[in-house]
Amino acid sequence: MPVDLSLYLVLDPALCGGLDGMLRVAAAAVRGGAGVVQLRAPGWKKRQWLEAAQALLPVCRAGGAKLVVNDHLDVALLAAADGVHLGQQDLPVAAARRLLGADALIGLSVSRPDQLAAVVPGVVDYLGVGPVYATATKPDADPPCGVDGLAAIARATTLPVVAIGGIHAGNAALLRTAGAAGVAVVSAICASPDPARATRALAAAWISPPWTAPV
Amino acid sequence: MPVDLSLYLVLDPALCGGLDGMLRVAAAAVRGGAGVVQLRAPGWKKRQWLEAAQALLPVCRAGGAKLVVNDHLDVALLAAADGVHLGQQDLPVAAARRLLGADALIGLSVSRPDQLAAVVPGVVDYLGVGPVYATATKPDADPPCGVDGLAAIARATTLPVVAIGGIHAGNAALLRTAGAAGVAVVSAICASPDPARATRALAAAWISPPWTAPV
Repeated sequence: MPVDLSLYLVLDPALCGGLDGMLRVAAAAVRGGAGVVQLRAPGWKKRQWLEAAQALLPVCRAGGAKLVVNDHLDVALLAAADGVHLGQQDLPVAAARRLLGADALIGLSVSRPDQLAAVVPGVVDYLGVGPVYATATKPDADPPCGVDGLAAIARATTLPVVAIGGIHAGNAALLRTAGAAGVAVVSAICASPDPARATRALAAAWISPPWTAPV
Repeated sequence: MPVDLSLYLVLDPALCGGLDGMLRVAAAAVRGGAGVVQLRAPGWKKRQWLEAAQALLPVCRAGGAKLVVNDHLDVALLAAADGVHLGQQDLPVAAARRLLGADALIGLSVSRPDQLAAVVPGVVDYLGVGPVYATATKPDADPPCGVDGLAAIARATTLPVVAIGGIHAGNAALLRTAGAAGVAVVSAICASPDPARATRALAAAWISPPWTAPV
């Protein structure tokens, strides 16, 4: 079954207020239309990662969403998550495919077109491209690639591209027209007082015509 | 084949001066008598962990030593290392045994006797106990348990106990008489100008009579 990448939530433990908050936000986002939920908790110890992944899995399953674990193949394996999302400095995607099997959803972060040379066809399922705009939620992120940078990468690959970094309901449709197959958000949902409503607003914005300057 | 735990090197990337230094220190220590080498690089990204583990494995094999990966089961699996060493907040030892198989060497850090209740017999191969003395090489370490604390844990378990934390040639024999099956060191070897000589000195000290006050 193809995965719906159009709205992709990356959970931030600090913005959500710990594991309980992450579970609430994930449940609301999945109800609101998020097709993928990613667990990313750089400061956490592995025991916490595993407990969070195990708690999130039924929440995602209940709404038909996929659960993806950032960075840690061992956590994904042990929690029986749907896949992993890997950065350029994380374990190689080929290793992830070998460990997790043919059905796993495997994403790779890309911020520049030259990084596409190392993308193995058939191993990676989608690319996470960004940050498109400047973002405060990932302090070690590369410089923003902008909408043009996103479009250049989307043109240069046959893989679906999920845009990330500074995305909200006001710029989602623009990224769709630039070639994105979906948008990944952190604070637009995690920091919202009403994550379900924020997710619905993003989902509606995604399929709306992009904003154009009045003539 | 039983593993020689008597002298156990924990590699510190900063003290060794990066991967090249770690390879030099590991080679010297294995020549000098270290039976286990542990890769521990908390600040590193996973790609670096994997490359280091893959580079260290033949170095350890050449000297008949075991290579153990701290924390990351995925790195241990992908590098075909001999085992893992896990802390109380890392992934559960039972999960490690399941993923790594019956032949893997699995160690668990313990700093207090009450943590022995969760130690599953047949799953854990040895306990790392400490810090015995105060140490600067692990900033998030528990308070020192002292020689008495080490002895209490060694008495309360049938598993071999490897003492760690502030250990050098001058106190190794004392820890043997307190019940340790071996000593794990970081700076005593990694920060030495002559790691092979430092390892031989520790190996000799380990089998020497403990220091006693002159009468």
